[in-house]
Amino acid sequence: MTRYAVIMAGGSGERFWPWSRSHLPKQFLNLLGESSLVQQAYERIINLFDTQNILVVTGKEHAALAREQLPSLPQGNLIIEPQGRNTAPCIGLAAMHIRKREPGATMLVFPADHLVQGQAEFLRCLERGIQLASTAEVLVTIGIVPTRPETGYGYIEREKDALPGTPLTFKVRQFVEKPTTNIALAYLRAGRYFWNSGIFAWQTDLILKKIEQQLPELYRGLTAIAGHIGSDGEQEAVDSIFPSLPSISIDYGIMEKSQEILVVQGDFGWDDLGSWAALAACFPKDQHKNVIKGEYVGIDTTDCLIYGQGLLIATLGVQDLVIVQAGNAVLVCAKERTQDIKKLVQSLKDQGLGRYL
Amino acid sequence: MTRYAVIMAGGSGERFWPWSRSHLPKQFLNLLGESSLVQQAYERIINLFDTQNILVVTGKEHAALAREQLPSLPQGNLIIEPQGRNTAPCIGLAAMHIRKREPGATMLVFPADHLVQGQAEFLRCLERGIQLASTAEVLVTIGIVPTRPETGYGYIEREKDALPGTPLTFKVRQFVEKPTTNIALAYLRAGRYFWNSGIFAWQTDLILKKIEQQLPELYRGLTAIAGHIGSDGEQEAVDSIFPSLPSISIDYGIMEKSQEILVVQGDFGWDDLGSWAALAACFPKDQHKNVIKGEYVGIDTTDCLIYGQGLLIATLGVQDLVIVQAGNAVLVCAKERTQDIKKLVQSLKDQGLGRYL
Repeated sequence: MTRYAVIMAGGSGERFWPWSRSHLPKQFLNLLGESSLVQQAYERIINLFDTQNILVVTGKEHAALAREQLPSLPQGNLIIEPQGRNTAPCIGLAAMHIRKREPGATMLVFPADHLVQGQAEFLRCLERGIQLASTAEVLVTIGIVPTRPETGYGYIEREKDALPGTPLTFKVRQFVEKPTTNIALAYLRAGRYFWNSGIFAWQTDLILKKIEQQLPELYRGLTAIAGHIGSDGEQEAVDSIFPSLPSISIDYGIMEKSQEILVVQGDFGWDDLGSWAALAACFPKDQHKNVIKGEYVGIDTTDCLIYGQGLLIATLGVQDLVIVQAGNAVLVCAKERTQDIKKLVQSLKDQGLGRYL
Repeated sequence: MTRYAVIMAGGSGERFWPWSRSHLPKQFLNLLGESSLVQQAYERIINLFDTQNILVVTGKEHAALAREQLPSLPQGNLIIEPQGRNTAPCIGLAAMHIRKREPGATMLVFPADHLVQGQAEFLRCLERGIQLASTAEVLVTIGIVPTRPETGYGYIEREKDALPGTPLTFKVRQFVEKPTTNIALAYLRAGRYFWNSGIFAWQTDLILKKIEQQLPELYRGLTAIAGHIGSDGEQEAVDSIFPSLPSISIDYGIMEKSQEILVVQGDFGWDDLGSWAALAACFPKDQHKNVIKGEYVGIDTTDCLIYGQGLLIATLGVQDLVIVQAGNAVLVCAKERTQDIKKLVQSLKDQGLGRYL
């Protein structure tokens, strides 16, 4: 059975402001090294799929950037959303593309902007998931073995025992929302909860059938678009129909309401890089527990993330801060508040300071 | 008796880094409004002295800046130190200039880089000090009525009662060093201690006689220079002799060891602006007790001083910080540590990062 990969590279990435900007969101930044997250995502799976069978979905304003960063991506494999409508329309549109090209294919879907430290284990899990999905009418997801009582992720509860003859693969008991700290601790102790990674594998026909059953309005819109795929009027149809599709996540719209989902256990150093604090946790620290990038001088500074792009950053007597200079802006943020940077971004919008976004 | 004013505009101003730089020290910055501190100092006394009788002393590397900022200062009234040697050589050199021009003159000396909020009261105090100094062989200083138990200033203890017939003027009992907090509190309660403002008035001949008696090595050097004042070789003589003069303050070298000093009580909103925190105290605060200059957006930010020059500064969940962006550098400093910024500057020197100084 032919296999396709869909890399979801939408999103505005406001939480990494001021490094991420409206014209340069998180997934296109070199947050982890010398290439961008979307480049790393692409490189990571290049040996598991034919290049022709890798699709990337991104927003209209970032299409040029995606082409620039992924020069080997075939021209027709970039799917452009005129505006973000969450993951269900994104995945549905990609599924329509794949079904048009090759009925009966299996597809893998994953976000471009996550950390994956264990490449080999990551690929083994993907392979396991794709194999399962291609041989059975079942939705498959990758569940991450939790390493801390994280309250920023959704969780997946699995059945107690693995499927007979299929190690590290379980039936899903339920998807659960982001927990409180106490509940997250209980999940960690219970030992049968995974983090929801947002990585999925299924047959294209199956996910479209699920969308048809559970999100019929979305399905009608996707069908209307599908009639134009491959034609001259394709993007025009997408641009006119896509923005009216219901904005809903695949988790909420499909996964949480489906029976017969399998979860493949993954343990490959995963993080969704949801904040500067999460990013800081990915890097080695100096002797004062600081993560430093760029020209820096400091005295009595501990547990800080300091990112300078062009300007020198100097600190004296500070702790637990995220300090970022990028372009025309400087951010100084308590480490525990980095989830709220989107509020700062909103404040900039409200004050007409769009030149800093 | 002719009166002269000497504005001391030397100093490297490292404590206001990164706004102050080696080429642009504190006294040349617009720290308090639209003109620089040295411009404000000059304007402040312009009605009390003939322009011809105002001298400014500054460092060699800042002479051009001084001429630019003080275009009405007569050409020959800028005295250039090849390097800073503290206040006694500075004052001695100025006194030699004045004696050469006009034997028997009275001189007022004051630093360029202080805050003076009450202009009228300031001038009244200066006038009182100059009158006293011109009519008696006595060293006169202005003592500031303390408003808080400041540990960053030296103090002057006065005799209990004012001089008969001379209100607000006292004999000095002693000069005292910067106190601990407890001692500063005791000074405040005692009610007969002033802050040492560094503003002095005396007859030129008297201060030179004191230097001759108490700092004979300095006097010999100054005398050697004096022979060249007004000649073509003047600056050459200063450049070769001045750097070898003992580096000592007028307080330590003369005032603390002299009898018969008078102090004129001053109460005119004075501060020596010794740090970013001291500067912050001079400005009105917003409803979150922040002092803001430049483009700014913030959430849950209190008691901060935020100075941006060109870049936007954004803050989230921080307190009691000094955040300054100027030119190619950003400073993030605990408010209570702003006295230590000179250590950061030293660290930059040590690391060969002179381009940020």
